[in-house]
Amino acid sequence: MASVAPEVEKKEEEEQVVNPWEVSAGKGGIDYDKLVDQFGCQRLDAPLIDRIARLTGRPPHRFLRRGLFFAHRDLNEILDIYEKGDKFYLYTGRGPSSEALHLGHLVPFMFTKYLQDAFKVPLVIQLTDDEKFLWKNLTVEESKRLARENAKDIIACGFDVERTFIFSDFNFVGGAFYENMVKVARCVTYNKVVGIFGFTPEDHIGKISFPPVQAVPSFPSSFPKHFSGNDQLRCLIPCAIDQDPYFRMTRDVAPRIGYQKPALIESRFFPALQGENTKMSASDPNSAIYVTDSTKDIKTKVNKYAFSGGQDSVELHRKLGANLEVDVSIKYLNFFLEDDDELERIKKAYKDGRMLTGEVKQLLVTVLSEMVERHKRARARVTEEMVDAFMAVRPLPNMFG
Amino acid sequence: MASVAPEVEKKEEEEQVVNPWEVSAGKGGIDYDKLVDQFGCQRLDAPLIDRIARLTGRPPHRFLRRGLFFAHRDLNEILDIYEKGDKFYLYTGRGPSSEALHLGHLVPFMFTKYLQDAFKVPLVIQLTDDEKFLWKNLTVEESKRLARENAKDIIACGFDVERTFIFSDFNFVGGAFYENMVKVARCVTYNKVVGIFGFTPEDHIGKISFPPVQAVPSFPSSFPKHFSGNDQLRCLIPCAIDQDPYFRMTRDVAPRIGYQKPALIESRFFPALQGENTKMSASDPNSAIYVTDSTKDIKTKVNKYAFSGGQDSVELHRKLGANLEVDVSIKYLNFFLEDDDELERIKKAYKDGRMLTGEVKQLLVTVLSEMVERHKRARARVTEEMVDAFMAVRPLPNMFG
Repeated sequence: MASVAPEVEKKEEEEQVVNPWEVSAGKGGIDYDKLVDQFGCQRLDAPLIDRIARLTGRPPHRFLRRGLFFAHRDLNEILDIYEKGDKFYLYTGRGPSSEALHLGHLVPFMFTKYLQDAFKVPLVIQLTDDEKFLWKNLTVEESKRLARENAKDIIACGFDVERTFIFSDFNFVGGAFYENMVKVARCVTYNKVVGIFGFTPEDHIGKISFPPVQAVPSFPSSFPKHFSGNDQLRCLIPCAIDQDPYFRMTRDVAPRIGYQKPALIESRFFPALQGENTKMSASDPNSAIYVTDSTKDIKTKVNKYAFSGGQDSVELHRKLGANLEVDVSIKYLNFFLEDDDELERIKKAYKDGRMLTGEVKQLLVTVLSEMVERHKRARARVTEEMVDAFMAVRPLPNMFG
Repeated sequence: MASVAPEVEKKEEEEQVVNPWEVSAGKGGIDYDKLVDQFGCQRLDAPLIDRIARLTGRPPHRFLRRGLFFAHRDLNEILDIYEKGDKFYLYTGRGPSSEALHLGHLVPFMFTKYLQDAFKVPLVIQLTDDEKFLWKNLTVEESKRLARENAKDIIACGFDVERTFIFSDFNFVGGAFYENMVKVARCVTYNKVVGIFGFTPEDHIGKISFPPVQAVPSFPSSFPKHFSGNDQLRCLIPCAIDQDPYFRMTRDVAPRIGYQKPALIESRFFPALQGENTKMSASDPNSAIYVTDSTKDIKTKVNKYAFSGGQDSVELHRKLGANLEVDVSIKYLNFFLEDDDELERIKKAYKDGRMLTGEVKQLLVTVLSEMVERHKRARARVTEEMVDAFMAVRPLPNMFG
């Protein structure tokens, strides 16, 4: 999978473009409403969120409550299955292109952990080291090393080893997985991938060959050791909306090769410190908070770079209040501050001019520092043996237990 | 690999087209001389054949003596290596699209066996069941079954199990092999495969993804269990000239990813019974002799369908003699009659009108029947255990012994 922290380009006149490798917004930022219509996915509305809460017997995750996971495909069918006492599995992934993850990378994993805990279902996590080799200027060895390092950060999110299989494409492609890749590839024309992904004739064939690799973890038969004899098991994919093209393609192909379509639950993008319409870029460490940042780093980055919706002077701010629509600290708190009431209190006080940007930022630094420190402690406890255990090709004990 | 029995289409006005899936000749049949220049390969001339004989201490195979293997790439370099006491390995393959092989299918395997015996080198044989799934209307299971059935015919050619690894792509793709596929794919653009293979935008991406699969057995690092630590071992590929496009591509990519270019030794096409410019087609069993044909079948097919270069009446034939250029019986004897002197005697007598088509055909029936019966007996002795032994992923004992 590509990063969930897309490189958002601001294009004033052109249509917004969202695919796994490019996200360019119109003048007002990403128009998610338009995206839902354009992609043909469904809105994740209040009744559906209520239903999740009712079925799982726990409050919906804040990412649901706050509309950060905002779209889906066939989620209602997954809930129907679950309500009848049947099972499904989760599939998510990451393209391991960088050493340290930033906060945006954690979003789908935090949410996936919630889903695994709430539904008690198995999970496969694909590390697309082959994709990163194909798109970035990395060696195979470096891509594989990054996949393993990133696996440690993923494990640190708290997944259950008895229900979770993490795999790198370079290590796992083959057998039933490769058979499914070839089956998918036979159903998709070059013209089709050009339409979906925007490839050009000058692109190398590695890119053109890759979409089936990300498609086939949607099919339980790709994991014969795990889901043997359960080839119609439904799959739910939590991911950022930029991954939708892969799964549109997958859903189009699935019935033609006798498989179930995967369902999806899709998030908005996590913004760069400089705001929704700027790039969160690996080449600019000040565009994102990394899980390796110290509290001091976080303080400096937030104070110096987090785009503010506050007014230029204290006087003006007290009078006009903050523009929450563009304020990055509020956006980050929206992702990571658990307490709804406190969030509302902060937003209202800030909007009314009673809170200053500096005060909001200080709160954010506390929230992020705690989260990052917690992650660091969890990651430090991840041993090589634990990585081996999560990545071992094996039947999952207590898969649905 | 595609069949070595191409579907030859006669095109009067157009350029000849030769690629792994299409062979269309100009008016006078395939112009091999032109093909060598067009492809940029080298002619396999008498001094090179003499050198092979000298180095191996055995007479050159009749396919060499008679110019049936007629072109090469860097074969001299392979001989240099061998002369210095260093080693290389052989790679050939088959696309398993049919139950029973015909005689044309045996040609590269007969020749490869000669090379293995003469040079005492290891051999990898790729069964491209994935290719046949992608190009033909087969299921994965059927493609895999045909691969295993075809392996039995290949084993019946007499390969040495201590030096030979036979693999099906569906079973073997993965690990180091997949890493090399991805490395190759990154070096080849869509435009490039369109130029080499004639793909169109309406072709499915399975076709576009396939060329790296056939490329990477050229690299010893694709077989870490077999050639571990020997990543610069040179590879020699015996194949029909229609496979040259794959290996032009492979040779172009090799130095860019730090590998040696494979060398090639390339054959002419084996003709259909009806002549050089007709299709040897699976849908017309009378276009070819199969290794499952009875002596009676062979007799009927040769007598009824083998295109004759003889004259319309005995009187005319005695006067004018046969046209050996178009006579299929002579072409077949050229492939399969070992005795050079006898072949020359027959050709002369036939050309001079002293021998009639019926007499030549009777000789051919004898030669083919003996060969096919011998093959049937050898194949009957091939057990499932022997297939497992050849296809086991293992270090090759006495690989160079």
